[in-house]
Amino acid sequence: MKLYHCGGSRGLRALWTIEEIGLDCDLIALPFPPRRLVPGYTDLNPVGTVPTLVDGDVVMTESCAIAQYLATRYAPDTLAVPVDHSDYGAFLDFLHHADATLTFPQTVYLRYGVMERERGLEQAGILYADWFGKRLAKVERRLETRAFLCADRFTVADIAIAYAILLARKIGIEDRVSPALVAWFDGLAERPAYKRMIARDEAAVPIPPDTPLP
Amino acid sequence: MKLYHCGGSRGLRALWTIEEIGLDCDLIALPFPPRRLVPGYTDLNPVGTVPTLVDGDVVMTESCAIAQYLATRYAPDTLAVPVDHSDYGAFLDFLHHADATLTFPQTVYLRYGVMERERGLEQAGILYADWFGKRLAKVERRLETRAFLCADRFTVADIAIAYAILLARKIGIEDRVSPALVAWFDGLAERPAYKRMIARDEAAVPIPPDTPLP
Repeated sequence: MKLYHCGGSRGLRALWTIEEIGLDCDLIALPFPPRRLVPGYTDLNPVGTVPTLVDGDVVMTESCAIAQYLATRYAPDTLAVPVDHSDYGAFLDFLHHADATLTFPQTVYLRYGVMERERGLEQAGILYADWFGKRLAKVERRLETRAFLCADRFTVADIAIAYAILLARKIGIEDRVSPALVAWFDGLAERPAYKRMIARDEAAVPIPPDTPLP
Repeated sequence: MKLYHCGGSRGLRALWTIEEIGLDCDLIALPFPPRRLVPGYTDLNPVGTVPTLVDGDVVMTESCAIAQYLATRYAPDTLAVPVDHSDYGAFLDFLHHADATLTFPQTVYLRYGVMERERGLEQAGILYADWFGKRLAKVERRLETRAFLCADRFTVADIAIAYAILLARKIGIEDRVSPALVAWFDGLAERPAYKRMIARDEAAVPIPPDTPLP
Protein backbone atom coordinates (compact mmCIF):
# COMPACT_ATOMS: atom_id res chain seq x y z
CA MET A 1 0.00 0.00 0.00
CA LYS A 2 1.25 3.49 -0.91
CA LEU A 3 -0.05 6.88 0.13
CA TYR A 4 1.05 9.89 -1.94
CA HIS A 5 0.73 13.02 0.13
CA CYS A 6 1.87 16.60 0.67
CA GLY A 7 2.72 17.78 4.20
CA GLY A 8 -0.33 18.80 6.24
CA SER A 9 -2.79 17.99 3.43
CA ARG A 10 -6.06 16.06 3.52
CA GLY A 11 -3.93 12.95 3.13
CA LEU A 12 -3.69 13.13 6.93
CA ARG A 13 -7.20 11.66 7.07
CA ALA A 14 -5.86 8.58 5.30
CA LEU A 15 -2.63 8.48 7.32
CA TRP A 16 -4.46 8.78 10.66
CA THR A 17 -6.76 5.92 9.63
CA ILE A 18 -3.73 3.83 8.60
CA GLU A 19 -2.11 4.47 11.99
CA GLU A 20 -5.30 3.62 13.90
CA ILE A 21 -5.55 0.26 12.10
CA GLY A 22 -1.81 -0.41 12.07
CA LEU A 23 -1.66 -0.99 8.31
CA ASP A 24 1.66 -1.32 6.53
CA CYS A 25 1.80 1.59 4.08
CA ASP A 26 4.60 3.56 2.40
CA LEU A 27 4.12 7.30 2.87
CA ILE A 28 5.49 9.15 -0.15
CA ALA A 29 5.73 12.92 0.29
CA LEU A 30 5.54 14.94 -2.92
CA PRO A 31 6.57 18.52 -3.75
CA PHE A 32 3.60 20.88 -4.20
CA PRO A 33 1.85 21.02 -6.62
CA PRO A 34 2.61 17.47 -7.71
CA ARG A 35 0.70 17.79 -10.99
CA ARG A 36 3.42 20.16 -12.21
CA LEU A 37 6.45 18.87 -10.30
CA VAL A 38 6.15 15.07 -10.39
CA PRO A 39 6.35 13.45 -13.85
CA GLY A 40 3.71 10.77 -14.28
CA TYR A 41 1.59 11.82 -11.32
CA THR A 42 -1.43 12.73 -13.45
CA ASP A 43 -1.22 9.28 -15.10
CA LEU A 44 -2.02 7.91 -11.65
CA ASN A 45 -4.38 10.72 -10.54
CA PRO A 46 -5.75 12.67 -13.53
CA VAL A 47 -6.79 15.62 -11.37
CA GLY A 48 -3.33 15.90 -9.80
CA THR A 49 -4.57 16.41 -6.24
CA VAL A 50 -3.31 14.77 -3.07
CA PRO A 51 -3.79 12.33 -1.49
CA THR A 52 -3.68 9.31 -3.75
CA LEU A 53 -3.94 5.86 -2.17
CA VAL A 54 -2.76 2.79 -4.06
CA ASP A 55 -3.84 -0.54 -2.56
CA GLY A 56 -3.16 -3.26 -5.12
CA ASP A 57 -5.43 -2.44 -8.08
CA VAL A 58 -7.40 0.12 -6.07
CA VAL A 59 -6.49 3.78 -6.71
CA MET A 60 -8.36 6.46 -4.76
CA THR A 61 -8.04 10.24 -4.53
CA GLU A 62 -10.73 11.49 -2.10
CA SER A 63 -9.52 11.65 1.49
CA CYS A 64 -12.84 10.87 3.19
CA ALA A 65 -13.55 8.06 0.75
CA ILE A 66 -10.12 6.59 1.52
CA ALA A 67 -10.84 6.75 5.26
CA GLN A 68 -14.17 4.99 4.74
CA TYR A 69 -12.59 2.41 2.41
CA LEU A 70 -9.79 1.53 4.83
CA ALA A 71 -12.20 1.35 7.76
CA THR A 72 -14.81 -0.83 6.05
CA ARG A 73 -12.23 -3.10 4.42
CA TYR A 74 -9.73 -3.47 7.27
CA ALA A 75 -11.39 -2.43 10.54
CA PRO A 76 -15.17 -2.75 10.12
CA ASP A 77 -15.83 -3.58 13.78
CA THR A 78 -13.89 -0.66 15.21
CA LEU A 79 -13.58 2.33 12.86
CA ALA A 80 -16.70 1.89 10.70
CA VAL A 81 -20.44 1.78 11.42
CA PRO A 82 -22.33 -1.15 9.85
CA VAL A 83 -25.24 -0.68 7.43
CA ASP A 84 -27.79 -2.05 9.91
CA HIS A 85 -26.73 0.27 12.76
CA SER A 86 -29.06 3.14 13.73
CA ASP A 87 -26.14 5.58 13.24
CA TYR A 88 -25.25 4.33 9.76
CA GLY A 89 -26.93 7.34 8.10
CA ALA A 90 -25.16 9.77 10.42
CA PHE A 91 -21.86 7.99 9.74
CA LEU A 92 -22.14 8.52 5.98
CA ASP A 93 -23.46 12.04 6.51
CA PHE A 94 -20.50 13.20 8.60
CA LEU A 95 -17.98 11.52 6.29
CA HIS A 96 -19.36 13.56 3.38
CA HIS A 97 -19.96 16.69 5.44
CA ALA A 98 -16.28 16.75 6.45
CA ASP A 99 -14.99 17.52 2.98
CA ALA A 100 -17.93 18.71 0.88
CA THR A 101 -19.19 21.23 3.45
CA LEU A 102 -16.28 21.91 5.81
CA THR A 103 -12.91 21.55 4.08
CA PHE A 104 -13.71 22.98 0.67
CA PRO A 105 -14.61 26.48 1.92
CA GLN A 106 -11.34 26.46 3.86
CA THR A 107 -9.46 25.86 0.60
CA VAL A 108 -11.26 28.85 -0.99
CA TYR A 109 -10.02 30.97 1.93
CA LEU A 110 -6.52 29.50 1.57
CA ARG A 111 -6.47 30.34 -2.13
CA TYR A 112 -7.79 33.91 -2.18
CA GLY A 113 -6.99 34.91 1.38
CA VAL A 114 -3.45 33.51 1.65
CA MET A 115 -1.77 31.87 -1.34
CA GLU A 116 -3.03 34.08 -4.18
CA ARG A 117 -3.65 37.28 -2.27
CA GLU A 118 -1.99 39.27 -5.04
CA ARG A 119 -5.12 38.68 -7.14
CA GLY A 120 -6.96 41.25 -5.01
CA LEU A 121 -9.78 38.79 -4.25
CA GLU A 122 -9.02 38.42 -0.53
CA GLN A 123 -12.62 39.23 0.43
CA ALA A 124 -13.81 36.23 -1.64
CA GLY A 125 -11.67 34.06 0.63
CA ILE A 126 -12.64 35.70 3.91
CA LEU A 127 -16.34 35.20 3.17
CA TYR A 128 -15.70 31.46 2.88
CA ALA A 129 -13.73 31.40 6.14
CA ASP A 130 -16.83 32.94 7.75
CA TRP A 131 -19.04 30.43 5.94
CA PHE A 132 -16.88 27.57 7.27
CA GLY A 133 -17.41 28.84 10.82
CA LYS A 134 -21.19 28.96 10.42
CA ARG A 135 -21.33 25.53 8.83
CA LEU A 136 -19.77 23.96 11.94
CA ALA A 137 -23.24 24.17 13.54
CA LYS A 138 -24.14 20.59 12.60
CA VAL A 139 -21.06 19.13 14.27
CA GLU A 140 -21.41 21.41 17.30
CA ARG A 141 -25.02 20.34 17.83
CA ARG A 142 -24.13 16.67 17.48
CA LEU A 143 -21.28 16.86 20.00
CA GLU A 144 -23.33 18.70 22.64
CA THR A 145 -24.42 15.31 23.96
CA ARG A 146 -21.74 12.98 22.61
CA ALA A 147 -18.00 12.32 22.92
CA PHE A 148 -17.87 10.84 19.39
CA LEU A 149 -19.96 11.60 16.31
CA CYS A 150 -21.40 8.13 15.74
CA ALA A 151 -22.16 4.86 17.51
CA ASP A 152 -20.77 6.04 20.90
CA ARG A 153 -17.23 5.21 19.82
CA PHE A 154 -14.33 6.60 17.78
CA THR A 155 -14.77 6.06 14.02
CA VAL A 156 -13.40 7.49 10.77
CA ALA A 157 -16.26 10.04 10.89
CA ASP A 158 -14.37 11.63 13.80
CA ILE A 159 -11.13 11.52 11.81
CA ALA A 160 -12.77 13.12 8.77
CA ILE A 161 -14.32 15.98 10.76
CA ALA A 162 -11.33 16.48 13.08
CA TYR A 163 -9.08 17.13 10.09
CA ALA A 164 -11.22 20.18 9.25
CA ILE A 165 -10.46 21.56 12.74
CA LEU A 166 -6.76 20.78 12.34
CA LEU A 167 -6.75 22.58 8.98
CA ALA A 168 -8.46 25.63 10.53
CA ARG A 169 -5.60 25.79 13.03
CA LYS A 170 -2.97 25.35 10.32
CA ILE A 171 -4.33 28.12 8.10
CA GLY A 172 -5.09 30.59 10.88
CA ILE A 173 -8.88 30.57 11.08
CA GLU A 174 -9.29 28.68 14.34
CA ASP A 175 -11.06 31.79 15.66
CA ARG A 176 -14.11 30.56 13.70
CA VAL A 177 -14.21 27.31 15.76
CA SER A 178 -16.10 27.19 19.08
CA PRO A 179 -14.13 26.41 22.29
CA ALA A 180 -16.19 23.22 22.72
CA LEU A 181 -15.14 21.98 19.30
CA VAL A 182 -11.49 22.92 19.87
CA ALA A 183 -11.62 20.95 23.14
CA TRP A 184 -13.13 17.95 21.34
CA PHE A 185 -10.35 18.08 18.76
CA ASP A 186 -7.64 18.43 21.42
CA GLY A 187 -9.02 15.32 23.13
CA LEU A 188 -8.74 13.29 19.91
CA ALA A 189 -5.21 14.62 19.37
CA GLU A 190 -4.17 12.70 22.51
CA ARG A 191 -4.68 9.41 20.69
CA PRO A 192 -1.41 7.56 20.06
CA ALA A 193 -2.34 7.03 16.40
CA TYR A 194 -2.85 10.78 15.95
CA LYS A 195 0.60 11.44 17.38
CA ARG A 196 2.17 8.80 15.13
CA MET A 197 0.39 10.37 12.15
CA ILE A 198 1.76 13.83 12.98
CA ALA A 199 5.28 12.45 13.53
CA ARG A 200 5.25 10.64 10.18
CA ASP A 201 3.90 13.71 8.38
CA GLU A 202 6.54 15.97 9.88
CA ALA A 203 9.39 13.52 9.22
CA ALA A 204 8.47 12.89 5.58
CA VAL A 205 10.87 14.60 3.14
CA PRO A 206 9.32 15.36 -0.27
CA ILE A 207 11.00 13.72 -3.22
CA PRO A 208 12.92 16.29 -5.33
CA PRO A 209 10.99 17.98 -8.18
CA ASP A 210 11.17 16.14 -11.51
CA THR A 211 11.86 12.80 -9.83
CA PRO A 212 9.79 10.03 -11.45
CA LEU A 213 6.97 8.78 -9.25
CA PRO A 214 8.18 6.10 -6.80
CA MET B 1 -39.85 9.21 4.45
CA LYS B 2 -39.59 12.94 3.73
CA LEU B 3 -37.20 14.84 1.48
CA TYR B 4 -36.90 18.59 2.01
CA HIS B 5 -35.61 20.21 -1.13
CA CYS B 6 -35.36 23.38 -3.20
CA GLY B 7 -36.01 23.21 -6.96
CA GLY B 8 -32.98 22.06 -8.97
CA SER B 9 -30.78 21.62 -5.89
CA ARG B 10 -28.48 18.77 -4.89
CA GLY B 11 -31.60 17.16 -3.43
CA LEU B 12 -32.07 15.82 -6.96
CA ARG B 13 -29.39 13.22 -6.18
CA ALA B 14 -31.63 11.91 -3.42
CA LEU B 15 -34.83 12.19 -5.48
CA TRP B 16 -33.31 10.38 -8.47
CA THR B 17 -32.18 7.56 -6.16
CA ILE B 18 -35.67 7.41 -4.62
CA GLU B 19 -37.21 7.14 -8.09
CA GLU B 20 -34.74 4.44 -9.19
CA ILE B 21 -35.64 2.31 -6.16
CA GLY B 22 -39.34 3.16 -6.17
CA LEU B 23 -39.38 4.30 -2.53
CA ASP B 24 -42.42 6.02 -1.06
CA CYS B 25 -41.24 9.50 -0.06
CA ASP B 26 -42.94 12.88 0.40
CA LEU B 27 -41.13 15.59 -1.53
CA ILE B 28 -41.43 18.90 0.31
CA ALA B 29 -40.27 21.93 -1.66
CA LEU B 30 -39.07 24.86 0.42
CA PRO B 31 -38.60 28.56 -0.39
CA PHE B 32 -34.93 29.59 -0.73
CA PRO B 33 -33.06 30.05 1.55
CA PRO B 34 -35.00 27.84 3.95
CA ARG B 35 -32.83 28.76 6.95
CA ARG B 36 -34.35 32.24 6.83
CA LEU B 37 -37.80 31.54 5.38
CA VAL B 38 -38.93 28.31 7.07
CA PRO B 39 -39.45 28.48 10.86
CA GLY B 40 -37.98 25.44 12.58
CA TYR B 41 -35.87 24.28 9.65
CA THR B 42 -32.57 24.80 11.47
CA ASP B 43 -33.91 22.69 14.37
CA LEU B 44 -33.98 19.83 11.88
CA ASN B 45 -30.86 20.80 9.93
CA PRO B 46 -28.61 23.15 11.93
CA VAL B 47 -26.71 24.31 8.85
CA GLY B 48 -29.94 25.19 7.02
CA THR B 49 -28.90 23.67 3.70
CA VAL B 50 -30.95 21.47 1.37
CA PRO B 51 -31.56 18.61 1.02
CA THR B 52 -32.61 17.09 4.31
CA LEU B 53 -33.79 13.48 4.32
CA VAL B 54 -35.88 12.15 7.21
CA ASP B 55 -36.26 8.37 7.31
CA GLY B 56 -37.67 7.42 10.71
CA ASP B 57 -35.04 8.48 13.24
CA VAL B 58 -32.43 9.03 10.53
CA VAL B 59 -31.83 12.68 9.52
CA MET B 60 -29.27 13.39 6.80
CA THR B 61 -28.17 16.53 4.99
CA GLU B 62 -25.43 15.56 2.51
CA SER B 63 -26.79 14.66 -0.92
CA CYS B 64 -24.15 12.07 -1.86
CA ALA B 65 -24.35 10.47 1.59
CA ILE B 66 -28.13 10.23 1.21
CA ALA B 67 -27.73 8.55 -2.18
CA GLN B 68 -25.26 6.04 -0.69
CA TYR B 69 -27.50 5.47 2.33
CA LEU B 70 -30.63 4.78 0.28
CA ALA B 71 -28.70 2.51 -2.10
CA THR B 72 -26.97 0.44 0.57
CA ARG B 73 -30.08 0.20 2.77
CA TYR B 74 -32.76 -0.35 0.14
CA ALA B 75 -31.13 -1.46 -3.12
CA PRO B 76 -27.72 -2.98 -2.29
CA ASP B 77 -27.73 -5.43 -5.19
CA THR B 78 -28.55 -2.88 -7.87
CA LEU B 79 -27.51 0.69 -7.00
CA ALA B 80 -24.61 0.05 -4.59
CA VAL B 81 -21.26 -1.75 -4.89
CA PRO B 82 -20.49 -4.24 -2.10
CA VAL B 83 -17.43 -3.95 0.15
CA ASP B 84 -15.79 -7.07 -1.31
CA HIS B 85 -16.14 -5.92 -4.94
CA SER B 86 -13.00 -4.81 -6.82
CA ASP B 87 -14.72 -1.50 -7.64
CA TYR B 88 -15.72 -0.75 -4.03
CA GLY B 89 -12.91 1.79 -3.62
CA ALA B 90 -13.83 3.53 -6.89
CA PHE B 91 -17.49 3.57 -5.82
CA LEU B 92 -16.70 5.45 -2.61
CA ASP B 93 -14.21 7.66 -4.42
CA PHE B 94 -16.68 8.87 -7.06
CA LEU B 95 -19.43 9.38 -4.49
CA HIS B 96 -17.16 11.75 -2.58
CA HIS B 97 -15.60 13.26 -5.70
CA ALA B 98 -19.05 14.29 -6.95
CA ASP B 99 -19.67 16.85 -4.24
CA ALA B 100 -16.31 17.60 -2.58
CA THR B 101 -14.42 18.14 -5.84
CA LEU B 102 -17.04 18.82 -8.52
CA THR B 103 -20.15 20.51 -7.09
CA PHE B 104 -18.58 22.81 -4.52
CA PRO B 105 -16.53 24.84 -7.04
CA GLN B 106 -19.73 25.26 -9.06
CA THR B 107 -21.39 26.83 -6.02
CA VAL B 108 -18.46 29.27 -5.68
CA TYR B 109 -19.07 30.28 -9.31
CA LEU B 110 -22.81 30.54 -8.67
CA ARG B 111 -22.22 32.79 -5.68
CA TYR B 112 -19.65 35.26 -7.00
CA GLY B 113 -20.32 34.91 -10.72
CA VAL B 114 -24.13 34.99 -10.67
CA MET B 115 -26.05 35.50 -7.42
CA GLU B 116 -23.80 38.03 -5.67
CA ARG B 117 -22.17 39.64 -8.69
CA GLU B 118 -22.70 43.08 -7.16
CA ARG B 119 -19.87 42.28 -4.73
CA GLY B 120 -17.38 42.82 -7.56
CA LEU B 121 -15.79 39.41 -6.99
CA GLU B 122 -16.94 37.83 -10.26
CA GLN B 123 -13.40 36.77 -11.15
CA ALA B 124 -13.25 34.68 -7.94
CA GLY B 125 -16.25 32.76 -9.27
CA ILE B 126 -15.03 32.38 -12.84
CA LEU B 127 -11.73 30.88 -11.64
CA TYR B 128 -13.71 28.14 -9.87
CA ALA B 129 -15.84 27.49 -12.97
CA ASP B 130 -12.54 26.93 -14.81
CA TRP B 131 -11.30 24.77 -11.92
CA PHE B 132 -14.49 22.67 -12.13
CA GLY B 133 -13.83 22.05 -15.83
CA LYS B 134 -10.26 20.90 -15.20
CA ARG B 135 -11.29 18.66 -12.32
CA LEU B 136 -13.59 16.65 -14.62
CA ALA B 137 -10.44 14.86 -15.85
CA LYS B 138 -10.88 11.94 -13.43
CA VAL B 139 -14.42 11.21 -14.61
CA GLU B 140 -13.50 11.71 -18.27
CA ARG B 141 -10.60 9.24 -18.00
CA ARG B 142 -12.79 6.68 -16.24
CA LEU B 143 -15.55 6.87 -18.85
CA GLU B 144 -13.20 6.53 -21.82
CA THR B 145 -13.57 2.76 -21.52
CA ARG B 146 -16.81 2.40 -19.56
CA ALA B 147 -20.53 3.14 -19.87
CA PHE B 148 -20.91 3.43 -16.08
CA LEU B 149 -18.43 4.55 -13.44
CA CYS B 150 -18.36 1.36 -11.35
CA ALA B 151 -19.03 -2.36 -11.54
CA ASP B 152 -20.17 -2.27 -15.21
CA ARG B 153 -23.65 -1.17 -14.19
CA PHE B 154 -25.63 1.91 -13.17
CA THR B 155 -25.10 2.86 -9.49
CA VAL B 156 -25.55 5.90 -7.27
CA ALA B 157 -21.97 6.89 -8.18
CA ASP B 158 -23.37 7.70 -11.65
CA ILE B 159 -26.23 9.66 -10.07
CA ALA B 160 -23.86 11.63 -7.84
CA ILE B 161 -21.52 12.59 -10.71
CA ALA B 162 -24.29 13.16 -13.27
CA TYR B 163 -25.86 15.80 -11.03
CA ALA B 164 -22.66 17.87 -11.36
CA ILE B 165 -23.13 17.85 -15.15
CA LEU B 166 -26.82 18.75 -14.78
CA LEU B 167 -25.85 21.65 -12.49
CA ALA B 168 -23.27 22.88 -15.02
CA ARG B 169 -26.06 23.05 -17.60
CA LYS B 170 -28.42 24.81 -15.18
CA ILE B 171 -25.92 27.52 -14.21
CA GLY B 172 -24.53 28.12 -17.69
CA ILE B 173 -21.06 26.57 -17.52
CA GLU B 174 -21.67 23.51 -19.66
CA ASP B 175 -18.97 24.86 -22.00
CA ARG B 176 -16.47 23.51 -19.43
CA VAL B 177 -17.78 19.94 -19.95
CA SER B 178 -16.37 17.75 -22.75
CA PRO B 179 -18.74 16.52 -25.51
CA ALA B 180 -18.08 12.92 -24.39
CA LEU B 181 -19.23 13.71 -20.86
CA VAL B 182 -22.29 15.63 -22.09
CA ALA B 183 -23.20 12.59 -24.23
CA TRP B 184 -22.77 10.29 -21.21
CA PHE B 185 -25.07 12.51 -19.17
CA ASP B 186 -27.66 12.71 -21.96
CA GLY B 187 -27.71 8.90 -22.09
CA LEU B 188 -28.45 8.66 -18.36
CA ALA B 189 -31.16 11.32 -18.73
CA GLU B 190 -33.11 8.83 -20.86
CA ARG B 191 -33.71 6.65 -17.81
CA PRO B 192 -37.39 6.60 -16.76
CA ALA B 193 -36.42 7.33 -13.13
CA TYR B 194 -34.50 10.45 -14.25
CA LYS B 195 -37.56 11.69 -16.11
CA ARG B 196 -39.81 11.02 -13.11
CA MET B 197 -37.34 12.90 -10.91
CA ILE B 198 -37.35 15.95 -13.22
CA ALA B 199 -41.16 15.88 -13.44
CA ARG B 200 -41.55 15.78 -9.64
CA ASP B 201 -38.98 18.54 -9.17
CA GLU B 202 -40.70 20.79 -11.70
CA ALA B 203 -44.19 20.10 -10.32
CA ALA B 204 -43.26 20.75 -6.69
CA VAL B 205 -44.62 24.07 -5.40
CA PRO B 206 -42.61 25.54 -2.49
CA ILE B 207 -44.53 26.03 0.73
CA PRO B 208 -45.17 29.75 1.40
CA PRO B 209 -42.51 31.60 3.45
CA ASP B 210 -43.08 31.54 7.21
CA THR B 211 -45.12 28.33 7.03
CA PRO B 212 -44.10 25.93 9.82
CA LEU B 213 -42.17 22.93 8.59
CA PRO B 214 -44.51 20.13 7.38
